[in-house]
Amino acid sequence: MSNEEKFFEREKGILIVISGPSCAGKGTVCKIVRENRPEIRLSVSETTRSPRNYEVPGKDYFFVTKEAFEQRIEQGKYLEYATVYDNYYGTPKDYVENLLEEGYDVILEIDIQGAAKVRENYKEGIYIFIAPPSMKELRRRIEMRGTESAEQMEMRLSCAYDEMTNADDYSYIVINQDKNVAAHQVESIITAEKCRTERLKNKVNDILGR
Amino acid sequence: MSNEEKFFEREKGILIVISGPSCAGKGTVCKIVRENRPEIRLSVSETTRSPRNYEVPGKDYFFVTKEAFEQRIEQGKYLEYATVYDNYYGTPKDYVENLLEEGYDVILEIDIQGAAKVRENYKEGIYIFIAPPSMKELRRRIEMRGTESAEQMEMRLSCAYDEMTNADDYSYIVINQDKNVAAHQVESIITAEKCRTERLKNKVNDILGR
Repeated sequence: MSNEEKFFEREKGILIVISGPSCAGKGTVCKIVRENRPEIRLSVSETTRSPRNYEVPGKDYFFVTKEAFEQRIEQGKYLEYATVYDNYYGTPKDYVENLLEEGYDVILEIDIQGAAKVRENYKEGIYIFIAPPSMKELRRRIEMRGTESAEQMEMRLSCAYDEMTNADDYSYIVINQDKNVAAHQVESIITAEKCRTERLKNKVNDILGR
Repeated sequence: MSNEEKFFEREKGILIVISGPSCAGKGTVCKIVRENRPEIRLSVSETTRSPRNYEVPGKDYFFVTKEAFEQRIEQGKYLEYATVYDNYYGTPKDYVENLLEEGYDVILEIDIQGAAKVRENYKEGIYIFIAPPSMKELRRRIEMRGTESAEQMEMRLSCAYDEMTNADDYSYIVINQDKNVAAHQVESIITAEKCRTERLKNKVNDILGR
């Protein structure tokens, strides 16, 4: 193995997939983690919808044409993608893998369905499930958003209940009672994963000079 | 399952076994972890040697007779034990398991041979290997102790080299370049392990009310 290859193998970043039912607070938790650990990159999605006036291309989304997106689907260029209201949204495989190869850890905040698809394509990721402390509290948080009818809220809650049953598919569960405690737990998981023996084999060989 | 059983299963502590070559700094790292996380208990060994005048029974060691120790060996009462200069030293199984059942996390700081025996008896433990940043640095630390002849030092270094090859048996490796960074990594590993899905199944069932 050349020195360069060794360097890349040793230094490769980890993909941290953060998911959970809607209103469990995964966005807030990710925001705090990124403030505390600015060296971690956030995965940026591609979409075919038009940019909103406050959105920065390349930061909020990569904006692409429908034709380009569909071509990239056929080329297998997405870790996952979905259609929402006639627009595509997808996680670009090359973008994420380049960051990982460069040694950056990458957070991908994504819904349960998206996380399941990413897992099929990237088993080496760290899968963290953000759960609400109780269904009662989740209901309160959904009601707080207050933008939906009672019927829509019930549907959302029932959907969140179903999504909770996916927690078993994840390596870690972070119960989001307090957002700062939850963020600290996510940061600890990232630190711990970087200490896993299988990720440090090259470093041990370096220490032993072999 | 009765409520009481459920409580115990949910709240059981974790055994954190911290090992590594001598002079890698496991004692210093453990000390910092315990200062930062006073809720974590330290496993106390039993020994047949006489107490030194500064030692507190039940804190530094449990002091027992040779007869009692040998009887307890036969009864399988030790997670591991060893003989050093005609004296026995052992990790009492009941003491550790009672603390874990009461919900305390327990740190066991132990040499490589002892850790290997504990692993046979307690697979659910978290095994953390504290490594020096380089063999050169390890040599410096061994020389700093300065209590040994050149020959003894070479033997010690050669022994440490052999012990380093055991790192693969551990789940985590913490490279002790800076003692505070190393302690933070150990603390992160403990926090992360407490978020592992298999440890939180009951909590998820509670959230879902099932």
